[in-house]
Amino acid sequence: MKRKKPTYNTYRCKGINNAIALLDSDRFRIVEVCIARLSAASKNKMVNQMISGYKVNYMDKDQFYKKYPDKKSQGILIKFSGQLTFNALPNFQNSNDVCLLALDQISDPQNFGQIIRTSECAGVDGIIFPKYNASSVSQTVLDVSQGAFVSIPLYEITNLSQELIELKKDGFWVVGIENNIKAKAWHQIDYNGKIVIVVGSEGKGIRKKILGMCDFIATIEMQGKSNSLNVSAATSAVLFERLRQMRK
Amino acid sequence: MKRKKPTYNTYRCKGINNAIALLDSDRFRIVEVCIARLSAASKNKMVNQMISGYKVNYMDKDQFYKKYPDKKSQGILIKFSGQLTFNALPNFQNSNDVCLLALDQISDPQNFGQIIRTSECAGVDGIIFPKYNASSVSQTVLDVSQGAFVSIPLYEITNLSQELIELKKDGFWVVGIENNIKAKAWHQIDYNGKIVIVVGSEGKGIRKKILGMCDFIATIEMQGKSNSLNVSAATSAVLFERLRQMRK
Repeated sequence: MKRKKPTYNTYRCKGINNAIALLDSDRFRIVEVCIARLSAASKNKMVNQMISGYKVNYMDKDQFYKKYPDKKSQGILIKFSGQLTFNALPNFQNSNDVCLLALDQISDPQNFGQIIRTSECAGVDGIIFPKYNASSVSQTVLDVSQGAFVSIPLYEITNLSQELIELKKDGFWVVGIENNIKAKAWHQIDYNGKIVIVVGSEGKGIRKKILGMCDFIATIEMQGKSNSLNVSAATSAVLFERLRQMRK
Repeated sequence: MKRKKPTYNTYRCKGINNAIALLDSDRFRIVEVCIARLSAASKNKMVNQMISGYKVNYMDKDQFYKKYPDKKSQGILIKFSGQLTFNALPNFQNSNDVCLLALDQISDPQNFGQIIRTSECAGVDGIIFPKYNASSVSQTVLDVSQGAFVSIPLYEITNLSQELIELKKDGFWVVGIENNIKAKAWHQIDYNGKIVIVVGSEGKGIRKKILGMCDFIATIEMQGKSNSLNVSAATSAVLFERLRQMRK
């Protein structure tokens, strides 16, 4: 039997900034660039420079928005293929100040996408997430991430606890974000150096086994009555607290 | 001509925690409580205590989820009516440590709902937003806010700049979150005392006139390439930095 070549799905990426990020990266294969005539994208100098050499489909504005109704596209949509995730982490043995974010079974693609976007803005070096029982990197995740998926490595791994063991051997400290009696306030944790920040799924939090591997547990105490901070909002609070500490 | 009574829309609220928050509040009129038999909600002690005296519609599980397909409902949906927003601010003259969040024309209901949820968790005392050119408090906003709308006052006002002038007279400092040459890093601002934090719409930021009224401007410098932090993620970073400062 003939062995099949690996086939990649085709994904879409909308909006000027996202398009520029994608065209600027060499990680993906650009299948087609669709541009609406007289749109913001069609008048954008940088876009016009970067699309040369690619298959470009100029469409009338009406036709474009009928086919791709999202107004946030600014008149550009790129179809691309390629590998969205890596399945192994690089060697961080000789690095200092590395921050990885581990997602323990986040299942909501909105949250996953938002977390990718926030992490990229907060200078996170990579996101680790399990292959099973979690949201995969879908088109929705890409859309919500707003092009951030191009510049932050996404590591889809088989076994999160095994990965944490390896990272600890390489000198990483593991901090779990969880409401727990052992927890300190999120701003009392030292985030300098090599660190893995673990966040859990909204309903269930971090799994017991993973929580047991955490060197520190950080909690964000709730002030209101609702007691339910969204996981991507919590991640934002913690990642920017890390940045604040690193600036000092 | 007979004058009409003001009529209120009927809204829906799903999920055990949200239902409890709503039933616990006396701000709204409970129209009907729908519960799926043998669901998590039907077995919840607190829910069962709190629904006594209201019109309760017990439905078979299949029937309930056919009518209300959202799995996150946990088998409870409350129909209610009432005034979701206030149209005037209370007098804060004799208060210390008040934090208000002002939204300058946030149009995306997802962001609006998330910001309500995060603000309630971060102990914000109220959210001010303009009546025009902005998202109103829709069913989507309520859904995303996850019941937080019950316990944080939402002030829908006509003129944001006029409101800021009044608040400044009452001793409030106004901090705008915006990338600007005059801006300091978000953690270099003192958030103690009476403060209004202003965030702008995703595309356009804070309007010039409003920005001119800010006593301080805070920026969250981006680390990555994408340069686009979601407004609700930025709000989370700033509000929890305020909490950190207040704990010290």
